[in-house]
Amino acid sequence: MIKAGIIGATGYGGSELVRLLKGHPEAEIRAVTSRSYTGKPYNEIFANFRHHEGLMLREENIESMAMECDVIFLALPHGAASAKVSDGLLKRARIIDFSPDFRISDASVYEEWYGVTHQAKPLLTEAVYGLSEIYRERIRGARLTANPGCYTTCGILALYPLIKEGAIDAHDIIIDAKSGVSGAGRGMDLNVHYNEANENAKAYKIGAHRHTPEFEEQLSLAAGERVVLSFTPHLVPMNRGILLTAYGKPAKSYSYDDIYGIFSQYYKDEYFIRLTNNGVFPETKWVKASNFCDIGFTIDERTGRIIIVSALDNLVKGAAGQAVQNMNLMFGLDEKAGLDMVPVFPV
Amino acid sequence: MIKAGIIGATGYGGSELVRLLKGHPEAEIRAVTSRSYTGKPYNEIFANFRHHEGLMLREENIESMAMECDVIFLALPHGAASAKVSDGLLKRARIIDFSPDFRISDASVYEEWYGVTHQAKPLLTEAVYGLSEIYRERIRGARLTANPGCYTTCGILALYPLIKEGAIDAHDIIIDAKSGVSGAGRGMDLNVHYNEANENAKAYKIGAHRHTPEFEEQLSLAAGERVVLSFTPHLVPMNRGILLTAYGKPAKSYSYDDIYGIFSQYYKDEYFIRLTNNGVFPETKWVKASNFCDIGFTIDERTGRIIIVSALDNLVKGAAGQAVQNMNLMFGLDEKAGLDMVPVFPV
Amino acid sequence: MIKAGIIGATGYGGSELVRLLKGHPEAEIRAVTSRSYTGKPYNEIFANFRHHEGLMLREENIESMAMECDVIFLALPHGAASAKVSDGLLKRARIIDFSPDFRISDASVYEEWYGVTHQAKPLLTEAVYGLSEIYRERIRGARLTANPGCYTTCGILALYPLIKEGAIDAHDIIIDAKSGVSGAGRGMDLNVHYNEANENAKAYKIGAHRHTPEFEEQLSLAAGERVVLSFTPHLVPMNRGILLTAYGKPAKSYSYDDIYGIFSQYYKDEYFIRLTNNGVFPETKWVKASNFCDIGFTIDERTGRIIIVSALDNLVKGAAGQAVQNMNLMFGLDEKAGLDMVPVFPV
Amino acid sequence: MIKAGIIGATGYGGSELVRLLKGHPEAEIRAVTSRSYTGKPYNEIFANFRHHEGLMLREENIESMAMECDVIFLALPHGAASAKVSDGLLKRARIIDFSPDFRISDASVYEEWYGVTHQAKPLLTEAVYGLSEIYRERIRGARLTANPGCYTTCGILALYPLIKEGAIDAHDIIIDAKSGVSGAGRGMDLNVHYNEANENAKAYKIGAHRHTPEFEEQLSLAAGERVVLSFTPHLVPMNRGILLTAYGKPAKSYSYDDIYGIFSQYYKDEYFIRLTNNGVFPETKWVKASNFCDIGFTIDERTGRIIIVSALDNLVKGAAGQAVQNMNLMFGLDEKAGLDMVPVFPV
Repeated sequence: MIKAGIIGATGYGGSELVRLLKGHPEAEIRAVTSRSYTGKPYNEIFANFRHHEGLMLREENIESMAMECDVIFLALPHGAASAKVSDGLLKRARIIDFSPDFRISDASVYEEWYGVTHQAKPLLTEAVYGLSEIYRERIRGARLTANPGCYTTCGILALYPLIKEGAIDAHDIIIDAKSGVSGAGRGMDLNVHYNEANENAKAYKIGAHRHTPEFEEQLSLAAGERVVLSFTPHLVPMNRGILLTAYGKPAKSYSYDDIYGIFSQYYKDEYFIRLTNNGVFPETKWVKASNFCDIGFTIDERTGRIIIVSALDNLVKGAAGQAVQNMNLMFGLDEKAGLDMVPVFPV
Repeated sequence: MIKAGIIGATGYGGSELVRLLKGHPEAEIRAVTSRSYTGKPYNEIFANFRHHEGLMLREENIESMAMECDVIFLALPHGAASAKVSDGLLKRARIIDFSPDFRISDASVYEEWYGVTHQAKPLLTEAVYGLSEIYRERIRGARLTANPGCYTTCGILALYPLIKEGAIDAHDIIIDAKSGVSGAGRGMDLNVHYNEANENAKAYKIGAHRHTPEFEEQLSLAAGERVVLSFTPHLVPMNRGILLTAYGKPAKSYSYDDIYGIFSQYYKDEYFIRLTNNGVFPETKWVKASNFCDIGFTIDERTGRIIIVSALDNLVKGAAGQAVQNMNLMFGLDEKAGLDMVPVFPV
Repeated sequence: MIKAGIIGATGYGGSELVRLLKGHPEAEIRAVTSRSYTGKPYNEIFANFRHHEGLMLREENIESMAMECDVIFLALPHGAASAKVSDGLLKRARIIDFSPDFRISDASVYEEWYGVTHQAKPLLTEAVYGLSEIYRERIRGARLTANPGCYTTCGILALYPLIKEGAIDAHDIIIDAKSGVSGAGRGMDLNVHYNEANENAKAYKIGAHRHTPEFEEQLSLAAGERVVLSFTPHLVPMNRGILLTAYGKPAKSYSYDDIYGIFSQYYKDEYFIRLTNNGVFPETKWVKASNFCDIGFTIDERTGRIIIVSALDNLVKGAAGQAVQNMNLMFGLDEKAGLDMVPVFPV
Repeated sequence: MIKAGIIGATGYGGSELVRLLKGHPEAEIRAVTSRSYTGKPYNEIFANFRHHEGLMLREENIESMAMECDVIFLALPHGAASAKVSDGLLKRARIIDFSPDFRISDASVYEEWYGVTHQAKPLLTEAVYGLSEIYRERIRGARLTANPGCYTTCGILALYPLIKEGAIDAHDIIIDAKSGVSGAGRGMDLNVHYNEANENAKAYKIGAHRHTPEFEEQLSLAAGERVVLSFTPHLVPMNRGILLTAYGKPAKSYSYDDIYGIFSQYYKDEYFIRLTNNGVFPETKWVKASNFCDIGFTIDERTGRIIIVSALDNLVKGAAGQAVQNMNLMFGLDEKAGLDMVPVFPV
């Protein structure tokens, strides 16, 4: 059994990770920590775990956790993760980091977008971007995996094959995404007050969301040239789910089957990616509580655009599920271990 | 592997059953039928099953299904189930019926409340009421199990121990329940139109809901005398979940611990019942997508009432989960097989 | 024009009052204050007022406000209101208080339930309970009106005629209420976090909610004897609205028409109370953004109970609308002035 | 008083129109019709009108209605409106048509997108596109006004000034819109079943929505050249509201103030258009139940795009409110008559 520790276990990403690991056949949770709730039973904070006694929220001590655990999941705000990870630590335990700290290879880009100094620059070259479908082999050998952002997972999976194959113009991409509220976390803020978020749709951080440089780095690597794109996140009134609509211009005239062929070439063996049929588009309700990312597209002949729609559960494939998928890869397990559940509907 | 067939697989209860059986370690689905969608792939109707190819909706033929399957789940409207079940059929396959047709032992009571003629009266004495926590032993030997209603499961579990022990007055019980919209099914009706149900709370069928005689029969059996009670169902704007508040008068002066002791005596070994701590009450969010029923209570000294609150997921413990629990008992499996999942939160 | 000031104008009750006064033909807002947002334009906090320039949030100074205004609305937490009101102040301006401070005539009962010392006991005898349908004449002459609670408005209107007429047993009343989340206010708290409240139903403060003594005082006055009742509030996932189900025992055998006659006798000329037809029950969606309280009932012959259902918009008839209704009475205006709008549906 | 008739009064657009006309100081409803509910009191279908007796749903007879009424609102499906309107009819009453039948001047374009034959081609040249902010003068004299679509109102208002001024490239426009469910109407369909629409986000009719040619005609007229654009509508789980994000390429380098200046030039005297401040974007919650359309924008220097966000209430400015605004213009009333209400929040 893989022994896992979780630092920052009382956010929504952390609690989803606890849920997934509780159902994992080859992992067990050894320690969970939380600054706000140290000393409390975990199931007092998250009563869905009422039947799972024994998990107590400890004081955070990453060094001792590293002695006890094979893998440590960090679910901390940006800046906090990089301050904790060191080469010494990585010699004792592998790290899967939910924060953006190790997602962007260029520390100056990170520092510009996040407004903090990066604390562990030497580890940036070692860290692997944990998008299993793209970096599977590198993740297998990684000591430090940077779990991708929720929007970026959804958008990179939607765009990667077409950009990699040069099928769309890398210089004219728009990503318009709609997220449920849990993406904003469990912290209190007027934006997540029920009466402010319910029955409301809004755009936010237009052209300025911090997932933008993450998108651009990954898609630039795929394109082999620098990609600059427009990313507009929206908040819509639902608990979970991201629906993402991406607009691109085809490099030449393609049929639906041509494009489907490209997606299929990349994803036909990817268990967690489900391509929809022609004329059918992903909806967030079909991926709830699962690790699937659904992808569909259309070619709009009138306007000469390819429009791609993707959907995932931001707390699973967009966070905890992908982290478990990475753990599975890093420890040589079946990639689907603990993740092979049917999405729950309606929920 | 137990071979299962499902008749009426395209309602919400039916699709939840497909989901649970897909994850069941010792059961497999052999056949699913639906009047509306015969000939279609199941995952075209419920796209959460996109990765589960091969399940096609057949034409309904219960006789041939009984040859092929060990157990048949009937998810049909009232009246339709009793018309299909016969002694001959039960010799070939066991039946778990989601409808009310075999829940009420007295056919005249059934006929009065449901306004239809019962088609299989001779089987009423054989049918077992499938509330595992109460009828476990009888269910183990049953050929025909009547899966309880969603409200009744939630309310009987909340009241049974106290009534059985004579701790509350069996003649002065009020049940006020609040249900999510999925309880009304997938059929179209103005009541389930999004804009009519969203942002709205209402009571319906006050004193006239068809789960009333089911409540009364079961609680009368517990009380050893005829129970007549008030049951008011309400519709509240959420997908899943029932929250039920029951009001009773204690037979004598009890402390919190006295009453907790009674609940504990009945439920301490019941995996799927979780008693909440003093001062904590069940909420539907903590049981989502799980087979748990949470129960809490308070003694209101000012008014001399015991107020019990229970919560469950109407599609799981209130329908498909309980059906699987019954199947597990009927086939000698671990009662928790395929049902031991942590509730999903937030969802 | 009546000149109005509002202290505590940036809660949901306060902002709804601003909205209603903006549409009032004979009132104008002279001053609004807020501790959190002093110095800011009101429409920066509530952008629905974008077209209404000029309203700035001032520093609170009730004395100077009283010089400038005919009426001051206090929308403050309990304890804060009574600390501000004095006989001297009332000589200069009339007060309509949204808090519970002047709703309960017995200061010791208030202090027991609210856990604070009452700061203005001498004014308790003068304060009038602002339920217009019951205390209309006294409100007309009042200097200080205690605007009722949202639950209590909904429940007292539902029960008052029957209790006053002795038609139901004053000693056996249960009130089970379901409220939208805006009743909890705009302050931040995990209970009102979107992902905690959405898709969830729960009971809270069972038998211990602070509207209980308010219910009991008013219904005791109606009954002519001490009433003690059970009140269970629930939170359901919607922005606005209270649906309340009250259970009573008839004093003798009544027909539907008998009871309807009693309601009609009290309410036939009450514009803001709408009795539903036989077999039809109130729903919160039909009263949204209006000052109506809808009331319906059934007599359950099987159980010998009368079950009354009432619905109102907690921010209008349950708060700001009722406050305007009281203002209209106190200043000799048409009681419906500024309040005669059709409920908005669907919203 | 203007005498109004409504044909098709029992959809959401129709009932919102009834609500607005009930509050209109210079209009009165003389007749309402509905195929489904002929002979029933209106307030039995929409109980928010409980206090407004006397409105009965009549059998449809547009000829006799035209004798009795000054204006007839047609709230019918496409194809049905054009079959009813004739020159003779227009001699007796003015028509405001909610359907798309008279929105598109080229009948062949209409017929291609709607798949039906246009029944009243000769009237197409006379019909005025009822977007008051653009066609005010023509609407004043119109006998037949084509009330714009909800998406198109929101999007044309967002784009018109910039396209008219040549500030953005008319050949590279993407409109990504998110609508509440009431836009789909009150008819029953699995798409509007509560459990299918709740907690779900989806795109639909990508590149194929019937508002596309309406967008293109109006924006082509503004541009002075043929505009072809991408329009992707999405359904998000809320009752009301459209949030629209439009992406354009500036014709040259503009500052924020340059673009604000253009918007201001067109809209500074438009009461129902509210431009947001720099850094602030429209949200649907701030326009609920009102006739406002809020517009904001940003210039993304990194990508060289202008991103415009607009929001309106699809049943008011997107349907019934705009219809009343048109009526006001057509009858020489104050354009704001009956429409000058503060948006309701939170609701």
